[in-house]
Amino acid sequence: MSRRSRGSNKWEVRASTLARNTHNLIRNIVENLQVEPNPSKQLIALSVGDPTTFGNLNPPEQVLQAVHESVEWHISRGYAPAKGHAEARQAVAEYSAHQGNVTADDVILCSGCSHAIELAISVIADSGQNVLVPRPGFMIYKTIAEGLGIEIKYYRLLPDEQWKVDLEDLENQIDDHTAAIVVINPSNPCGSVYSKDHLLEILDIASRNHVPIIADEIYEHFVFSNYEFTALSTLSQDVPILTCSGLTKRFLVPGWRMGWIVIHDRQNIFQKEVREGLAQLANRILGPNTLIQRALPSILKYTPQSFFDEVVLFIENQAKLAYEELRRAPGLRPVMPQGAMYMMIEVKMSMFPEFKNELQFVERLVSEQSVFCLPGQCFEYPNFMRIVLTVPEDILKEACLRIATFCKEHIVSREKLKEIDTNFVLPSETQVICDNGLTRVA
Amino acid sequence: MSRRSRGSNKWEVRASTLARNTHNLIRNIVENLQVEPNPSKQLIALSVGDPTTFGNLNPPEQVLQAVHESVEWHISRGYAPAKGHAEARQAVAEYSAHQGNVTADDVILCSGCSHAIELAISVIADSGQNVLVPRPGFMIYKTIAEGLGIEIKYYRLLPDEQWKVDLEDLENQIDDHTAAIVVINPSNPCGSVYSKDHLLEILDIASRNHVPIIADEIYEHFVFSNYEFTALSTLSQDVPILTCSGLTKRFLVPGWRMGWIVIHDRQNIFQKEVREGLAQLANRILGPNTLIQRALPSILKYTPQSFFDEVVLFIENQAKLAYEELRRAPGLRPVMPQGAMYMMIEVKMSMFPEFKNELQFVERLVSEQSVFCLPGQCFEYPNFMRIVLTVPEDILKEACLRIATFCKEHIVSREKLKEIDTNFVLPSETQVICDNGLTRVA
Ligand SMILES: Cc1ncc(COP(=O)(O)O)c(C=O)c1O
Ligand SMILES: Cc1ncc(COP(=O)(O)O)c(C=O)c1O
Repeated sequence: MSRRSRGSNKWEVRASTLARNTHNLIRNIVENLQVEPNPSKQLIALSVGDPTTFGNLNPPEQVLQAVHESVEWHISRGYAPAKGHAEARQAVAEYSAHQGNVTADDVILCSGCSHAIELAISVIADSGQNVLVPRPGFMIYKTIAEGLGIEIKYYRLLPDEQWKVDLEDLENQIDDHTAAIVVINPSNPCGSVYSKDHLLEILDIASRNHVPIIADEIYEHFVFSNYEFTALSTLSQDVPILTCSGLTKRFLVPGWRMGWIVIHDRQNIFQKEVREGLAQLANRILGPNTLIQRALPSILKYTPQSFFDEVVLFIENQAKLAYEELRRAPGLRPVMPQGAMYMMIEVKMSMFPEFKNELQFVERLVSEQSVFCLPGQCFEYPNFMRIVLTVPEDILKEACLRIATFCKEHIVSREKLKEIDTNFVLPSETQVICDNGLTRVA
Repeated sequence: MSRRSRGSNKWEVRASTLARNTHNLIRNIVENLQVEPNPSKQLIALSVGDPTTFGNLNPPEQVLQAVHESVEWHISRGYAPAKGHAEARQAVAEYSAHQGNVTADDVILCSGCSHAIELAISVIADSGQNVLVPRPGFMIYKTIAEGLGIEIKYYRLLPDEQWKVDLEDLENQIDDHTAAIVVINPSNPCGSVYSKDHLLEILDIASRNHVPIIADEIYEHFVFSNYEFTALSTLSQDVPILTCSGLTKRFLVPGWRMGWIVIHDRQNIFQKEVREGLAQLANRILGPNTLIQRALPSILKYTPQSFFDEVVLFIENQAKLAYEELRRAPGLRPVMPQGAMYMMIEVKMSMFPEFKNELQFVERLVSEQSVFCLPGQCFEYPNFMRIVLTVPEDILKEACLRIATFCKEHIVSREKLKEIDTNFVLPSETQVICDNGLTRVA
């Protein structure tokens, strides 16, 4: 039978540009590492940004109870409006009162904060535009943007000033195609918490250059003593802000996929279009799980403050523990965090000349000491590694001891150093970070 | 202070092309309708494709129990791999054995079937390409594709042949830019269930033209007596198929947002790229709710067959009831479904000359009889309306009686017809559907 073939005359199926340009940087790097742990030591993974992994941190009973009740309700099974049930959005609005004046209409429920970020970027940036993202910073922005043809441009954070934004660099990155600035506060991976004054400086740049902000505040309220979290939106006079947050970290339920966007737009700069755009984009997957939506009012209202306080205090103590242990490890320089649940540690590579880069350092740390830290390249920030502070205390302590042992075993002696490279000057604590994020020996 | 402004020199924020081109057709049409019900009659909405709305259909106890248990498990709170927990994917693979040889590796868990469709389209079609979709058909395809610059082209279904595909039209629509054919079986809104032979005819076209298929089988097993559901994938020799399904309809939990894609690719035509693309795209929102993922093995294994049988029998009886009532209503022609949970009803507009189109017909049906049916234009298929069969029996009966009353009150008499339009010929049952989907009087 000879019927005309109208399609291709052979099988040739490619993945779309979107799919080919979507990458999970962390996954790709981690999968390519040689990470066979030392069989004689139990593996300790300090790499996974999931506070529930070790079972030591659990959501409060009230939260679980709210979901049990929701399971029994007939109304928790049907479709919700794509942007979420009105009661749940109202509950988020009340919970977000610290962000300024928020009504249920300003809230869009999402399938986790990642989805909130996906909607925020998709609604505001077009293919060919760019979005400014902190380096080091959480990498979902890259995963989401590049598939859509949106360029990610980095602005620098200053490790020696508790990861404050390099304001000049931020402003320099802005161009005619800049659709948004992303501010992650408190920060993953840095654990920094910005002061009001610093947030005002950032806002000033956004305001003068007329660039909206995506405020990633998923670690809101995860703040150690003597620091204070300020929602960026409370300080803005004009800059429109899409604040992304959710249950994930604070309520210790990352798998439940409940996040949200709160629209802050005092001067009505987004006008109807961006609001309406968010509502329309939500139709693509029809919103987050309704069991959790229905439980949300109880979860947000009845979780006792003492639960949050205990979790944060635990993390703060862990941070102190790890900092004390690791700052004594030769060749490492931990940066004490002010919040969130991570710590960044500089690895002075020049003092470990047997390793080409920090990837090799973490690989060997696994194969010898069975401790896995996330290499800085996962945040496009070489010569650092990130550890997670939520693991149980004894495990964290054990891990830090092993890291210190590893450093002692591999640090080069002054004599050896000179032998290897006669031009070599032993680096001091005042190294500078170069434009490309690499450590330059001063 | 005169600092140079590098961004825009005034506020000018637009929604992205993606956002501006994303539309929920049903919502947009429904929101523009004048639908004030008659205050003396209780509103009956036959418009909402949610079987849980009226509370008469509920998931089986086993399903709720599985979720209660999951809430207590510590492992149900953490992040899952973006494409889902291995155990849950394994459970879907076993549940999908009727689709052919399926392993956990072929399964990607999604946030509802809508998200499955979003991933399937996004991975396989590029901006500038097109995807062929049945008309009338469920409209999420349009919502998802057009935002990404992917064109939707319609192929015709034949209402007089129980909504079989017009094969010639299907093949005519294929061109060099066709990335996929969507087959919805059983169908929303038609309720059709295709025979093996008909599915083979469709596959033959896809095979000869080398076009992959997206098989939307969210209503799998929703089939009335004397009909049989065949998974398209079991019949394919070469055509690669992405089958989209989920818990939504069969388990009566649409709000839970648990769907999946099963990759069928016997000849390895997708190769690694499409598989890897799906895995990468899943990273954008990090998969569906883990409470349900953890419950999934129990849900899929322990839900008794009797539960499914009872639900389907109920819907079949409702279909018969509505068909019998409405085929006697003057000016209407219901098409008896073979499965799913909907019925399409032709409204012979020429017999209701006071209404310009079926939109006005359904508007007046609401304002006089407080019964709301979904106008065909929600499926780009004018002159029809869709009713949902899952409402309680007494309510469905009452609704059909009111619809019949409405028709009797508004049908034009033969005399009146001639008076209005002297050229008018009273249409017979053998009207034809024109290319544009409009009814032409023969
Ligand atoms: C800064 C930041 N934003 C967003 C997310 C994503 O949160 P979710 O799990 O709710 O998608 C994370 C998760 O680690 C994060 O660290
Ligand atoms: C044919 C068809 N496909 C997909 C869907 C979407 O299903 P879900 O609610 O799981 O996203 C529906 C919902 O009505 C449908 O009718």
